[in-house]
Amino acid sequence: MNFVEKLTGATRKNRSLLCVGLDSDPELIPDGLSIFEFNRAIIDATADLVCAYKPNLAFYEAGGAGGFEALKRTVDYVPDNIPVIADAKRGDIGNTAKAYARAIFSYFNFDAATVNPYLGFDAIDPFIQYHDRGIFILCRTSNAGAVDFQSLRCEVEDGQHPLFEIVALKASQWNTYGNIGLVVGATYPDELKQIRLNYPDLPLLIPGIGAQGGDLALTIRYGVDARGEKAIINSSRQIIYASRGSDFAEAARRAASELREQINQHLSSLSR
Amino acid sequence: MNFVEKLTGATRKNRSLLCVGLDSDPELIPDGLSIFEFNRAIIDATADLVCAYKPNLAFYEAGGAGGFEALKRTVDYVPDNIPVIADAKRGDIGNTAKAYARAIFSYFNFDAATVNPYLGFDAIDPFIQYHDRGIFILCRTSNAGAVDFQSLRCEVEDGQHPLFEIVALKASQWNTYGNIGLVVGATYPDELKQIRLNYPDLPLLIPGIGAQGGDLALTIRYGVDARGEKAIINSSRQIIYASRGSDFAEAARRAASELREQINQHLSSLSR
Repeated sequence: MNFVEKLTGATRKNRSLLCVGLDSDPELIPDGLSIFEFNRAIIDATADLVCAYKPNLAFYEAGGAGGFEALKRTVDYVPDNIPVIADAKRGDIGNTAKAYARAIFSYFNFDAATVNPYLGFDAIDPFIQYHDRGIFILCRTSNAGAVDFQSLRCEVEDGQHPLFEIVALKASQWNTYGNIGLVVGATYPDELKQIRLNYPDLPLLIPGIGAQGGDLALTIRYGVDARGEKAIINSSRQIIYASRGSDFAEAARRAASELREQINQHLSSLSR
Repeated sequence: MNFVEKLTGATRKNRSLLCVGLDSDPELIPDGLSIFEFNRAIIDATADLVCAYKPNLAFYEAGGAGGFEALKRTVDYVPDNIPVIADAKRGDIGNTAKAYARAIFSYFNFDAATVNPYLGFDAIDPFIQYHDRGIFILCRTSNAGAVDFQSLRCEVEDGQHPLFEIVALKASQWNTYGNIGLVVGATYPDELKQIRLNYPDLPLLIPGIGAQGGDLALTIRYGVDARGEKAIINSSRQIIYASRGSDFAEAARRAASELREQINQHLSSLSR
């Protein structure tokens, strides 16, 4: 089973486009819990409500070797039918990219990873070579600084286009094995709309709703494919820190359930 | 002491622009040695010949928690007067970039880090805020795929420039604390020349000689500042795998010594 099949399976089984971001920060989780214990409780509370989980590696690296151990245990713990996406945003030259891909796909056994396009094709190819895994190329990120370079108008054969559109075009051309997707932030709905129009079939990983302020209705309207799928709507802090007390897991379940419901309502209003 | 002072101190004490890349791959080091033991032997054999060390984090991540432990011990082991650069090429949004910066500068205590510009200023700022550390922004990378996006001509106020030149310009504008440098590959000498002309004072981290085929004479000629400094010439495989047998450390010393000598000869021919 490849990544898209696994994603679609989880989406349909759980009727969910919601991805919970496991950005578990030692400073923000309840006292006395390890990172792994925190993640395990979140996963237990939400595994029937999500289409994917997405740990951002930064939070685990900040804990050094112990953080990496917690990450490994977390990936292993997620039920087999739910894909786990490594939000790693890696990009390095061939030899080194191979080592990153090995770390993410072989050592940790993630189902998918985010990668940075700045170094070009040969930095991404070692990831693509894992044909059954998903590769999400950063296209239009959700942060304010995204405009610094991603919006620059660049000269290509058929005229000028913003850099992020050229990245999307290249990504679609590199998609020989059907395992490439794009990261497009919910905070830029016009750009999201354009990308979905141009690439009706690519899976889109969409961060930026919730704390970052992206509009959920527009995100659903513009982000999903013709079947109302292939949009992975990520929420991290809004779910995992819904309560900072000992009821964090139940609160996470409530928050995830509400958000899934909102997403599904927006979806059903599209098809009316 | 800030990063540039530490780098300059090591450059002058060891009369060296050579940086040894500690890209220590479990599959390539002699049997029976741990990664840390291998690195320790390389450091013992070369610490009087280099201006810096540069482990690429990919090789340590591929070893999971144990790899991270080896990396921590390696950084700790490098003599205090030699800066250690985390070749991490990180780039993520504010909250997460902070966690990466904390991992690299607080947990591992690296002196400098490489970062990816694709996400813009707010992805780099958390690194810049460590004023005594060095931040090397990827500008023109040494790989073939660098041309895919870095060479695109982009529209800015004063006309069209390649993306990597716009990255360099922004980097120089963000350099409030004097802790920013650029990564420019030795495999693109014309671009290296242009960057050095435009930014006479920025430290340049220059990978791509040796196995990747960059020309050493041109790299020195175009890469150094007016004092013949602030160019960090990285070599990894040519040094650490100079021998694959039990004499790897002596072989690494010989290779490092020869390369430093070649660099210094090119330097002295510049001033004649």
